Amino acid sequence: MNFSLDDAVPVLRATPGVLRAWLADLPGVWIRSNEGPETWSPFDIVGHLIHGERTDWIPRLELLLAHGDSRPFTPFDRFAQFRDSQGKSLDQLLDTFAELRAGNLSRLESFRLEPRDLNRPGRHPELGLVSLGQLLATWVAHDLNHLGQIARVMGRQYTQAVGPWLEYLPLLRSRGR
Amino acid sequence: MNFSLDDAVPVLRATPGVLRAWLADLPGVWIRSNEGPETWSPFDIVGHLIHGERTDWIPRLELLLAHGDSRPFTPFDRFAQFRDSQGKSLDQLLDTFAELRAGNLSRLESFRLEPRDLNRPGRHPELGLVSLGQLLATWVAHDLNHLGQIARVMGRQYTQAVGPWLEYLPLLRSRGR
Repeated sequence: MNFSLDDAVPVLRATPGVLRAWLADLPGVWIRSNEGPETWSPFDIVGHLIHGERTDWIPRLELLLAHGDSRPFTPFDRFAQFRDSQGKSLDQLLDTFAELRAGNLSRLESFRLEPRDLNRPGRHPELGLVSLGQLLATWVAHDLNHLGQIARVMGRQYTQAVGPWLEYLPLLRSRGR
Repeated sequence: MNFSLDDAVPVLRATPGVLRAWLADLPGVWIRSNEGPETWSPFDIVGHLIHGERTDWIPRLELLLAHGDSRPFTPFDRFAQFRDSQGKSLDQLLDTFAELRAGNLSRLESFRLEPRDLNRPGRHPELGLVSLGQLLATWVAHDLNHLGQIARVMGRQYTQAVGPWLEYLPLLRSRGR
């Protein structure tokens, strides 16, 4: 599937509602359980998505629009949520994410990007030359990656509980970040 | 995590809203794209979840409650959705799934199961002896498995579009049912 803004924006717009529908009414044990040492719980994942809204996608897009590939993006802190989410409730995180995402989609719209803009170059600090379209596609794919992670982290809590059905549930046997 | 009805039911109750928040407003290309021949699109997955509500979880529970492990469950048709979903819109499928799930959770509640009931035995046609608790845990894990599948199927549509970022997106490189 080729990237287009018209296809991408609805996915980005949906994510806050998906997280709320999925997590807001769950017992705390689902929200705080992870896959073992140095893995993330759904609570950690929402915090990570918040940090992305604050420091990653739109700030990188603005840097690319202003400076092309002459200035590399600021490296992304994959562990910021362990500091920033401390003492917050899941509800607060869900609200914060929804507000930040709505604001960022408004900013995206304000740039009035055209299809030809998708080829504009930027520079990733590790990956090197990237395009504006690749940056926006990655914003979408990053949401989906972490929604898939929430499904996996939650599912794996029942690896024992499902007994012999484990054979039919590939997600519960997989592991990754 | 040990299985308990109090933890499991909120996950089952959330799934129809998650699917609606995620899929209802997406362009059709996201809904109908799969991972290649003999793989499922989000549309197919919602149809599969509907078939599970009709023929799998609660019917099996009722058989187990009535006959213990003396009668094996009816085998589940993993391809029924290709027949049953034909000519339907996604909105219709989402409504049908939400109604069936709500009805099944009411039926589950009506059985007034106690913790000791979780050990009651049933018989799976392929897996053999299973327990009531394992059946209910699998209902939950099956939802999560297919939510993870939706994330993966959608994410993989952007395997090319993300360019060099693919390295950071394990979900887009994975494949499975």
